[in-house]
Amino acid sequence: MDTTIIYGKNAIIEALEKCDREFNKILISNSARADVKIEQIKKLAKKNGVIFQFVAKEKLNALEPEGKHQGVIAQVAPIKYIELEDFIAQQKGKLSSVVILDGVEDSHNVGAIIRSCVCAGIKGIILPSRRGVLINSTVEKTSAGAINHISIIKTNSLVNTIQKLKENDYWVIASDHHAEQNHYEIDYTDINFALIMGAEHAGISKSLLKLADFKVKIPMLTNFNSLNVSNATAIILFEYVSQLCKKNKRKEKNE
Amino acid sequence: MDTTIIYGKNAIIEALEKCDREFNKILISNSARADVKIEQIKKLAKKNGVIFQFVAKEKLNALEPEGKHQGVIAQVAPIKYIELEDFIAQQKGKLSSVVILDGVEDSHNVGAIIRSCVCAGIKGIILPSRRGVLINSTVEKTSAGAINHISIIKTNSLVNTIQKLKENDYWVIASDHHAEQNHYEIDYTDINFALIMGAEHAGISKSLLKLADFKVKIPMLTNFNSLNVSNATAIILFEYVSQLCKKNKRKEKNE
Repeated sequence: MDTTIIYGKNAIIEALEKCDREFNKILISNSARADVKIEQIKKLAKKNGVIFQFVAKEKLNALEPEGKHQGVIAQVAPIKYIELEDFIAQQKGKLSSVVILDGVEDSHNVGAIIRSCVCAGIKGIILPSRRGVLINSTVEKTSAGAINHISIIKTNSLVNTIQKLKENDYWVIASDHHAEQNHYEIDYTDINFALIMGAEHAGISKSLLKLADFKVKIPMLTNFNSLNVSNATAIILFEYVSQLCKKNKRKEKNE
Repeated sequence: MDTTIIYGKNAIIEALEKCDREFNKILISNSARADVKIEQIKKLAKKNGVIFQFVAKEKLNALEPEGKHQGVIAQVAPIKYIELEDFIAQQKGKLSSVVILDGVEDSHNVGAIIRSCVCAGIKGIILPSRRGVLINSTVEKTSAGAINHISIIKTNSLVNTIQKLKENDYWVIASDHHAEQNHYEIDYTDINFALIMGAEHAGISKSLLKLADFKVKIPMLTNFNSLNVSNATAIILFEYVSQLCKKNKRKEKNE
């Protein structure tokens, strides 16, 4: 089978627990300290019928040259992307939300964003196939396995994708530091929304900005530069989460 | 002089603009593309009387082996930490806020947190000298130069530091996912506050948790794991910023 690697104990545990990833085998370093997480990986591997082998640390270093593997690497089938049409069909009849990354280039940022998306209950993440990074081992490690808990859509044209989302009742929100409206001035709780976040330096492409129903900024207390894109995404998504929690509390009180 | 390096164009520009860092010299790769930012660095260096030299790329690679220097490295005096007592004295008479990192180990996270702190108008950041990372070149690069815009305090004892802050009218807020109160249920706008964020895996030490006046959690919409510490910090800090902006707007309306 066509394989990729996952490294990092949490990322491997998440993938084993989620059970929908095809595993080839798991390699554990001979010299890895037998800690709780390694034991958990062995237990989950046995349960799921996944082979694990003890190998020299050098073998792991050859597969992951940055040496951040924490003594364990899993060889797995690459992540499955899903088609936009299938995603939209799956989401029909419930409130839905996606995050669109317009050319984000740093794998650590993409991984951290996917992790925040899952924590915030976002249903899908959309990546352009030709700009920015796609899912790789660093994204998977940084996401702490979150990529197994969200639909990932790869697209050749973000313009077409956004138009299709609009036709299907998604409101398009663009994060843009030139915007007049603050991010907390939108009610995210009873709409389907697609939040576009731009590349680290260039921001969101003009062609996509034009398609946005709302443009929002995160107000800053100093003139300094700007936020890291993964932090900016987390701030907006958790404004949505706060709004939802407050709304649910009001509902409970009224019942 | 005792020197360290700064790499990354933005980090170097920030340090040159801030003018309070002692520069030894700036090394620019012969093969660096002469872009807007390199030009800006040369201009600022001339203005500040800082020597710059063109050198072979290999020389830069030797100073920064990960190859993330973007063709330019500055040799500078190490960052100046300030004493807690001096910080507290400087802040007297105005509302103040600090972030305390209890053993955060990833330089990228520390850098991104400092960047968010500056954007959120936080006045100081407190790092323990023996746990977690101190300021290094990666922190400086990831902070995009933000470390030049905030007071940085290094302490041998976080317990003593927190007690001293409490004696000086700071309210201590600990981010703890076992907390009952949500982070948005605190009014941050008319208190001095010290926000403690814990290490990536272990969270906040028990001895510090005991000293907290408030414990807050960020509610999640799924059971998945947890947020990256830099994202969690950004979410809480920008709840404070949102509260402050909303309050100022109400004030303006009433005037």
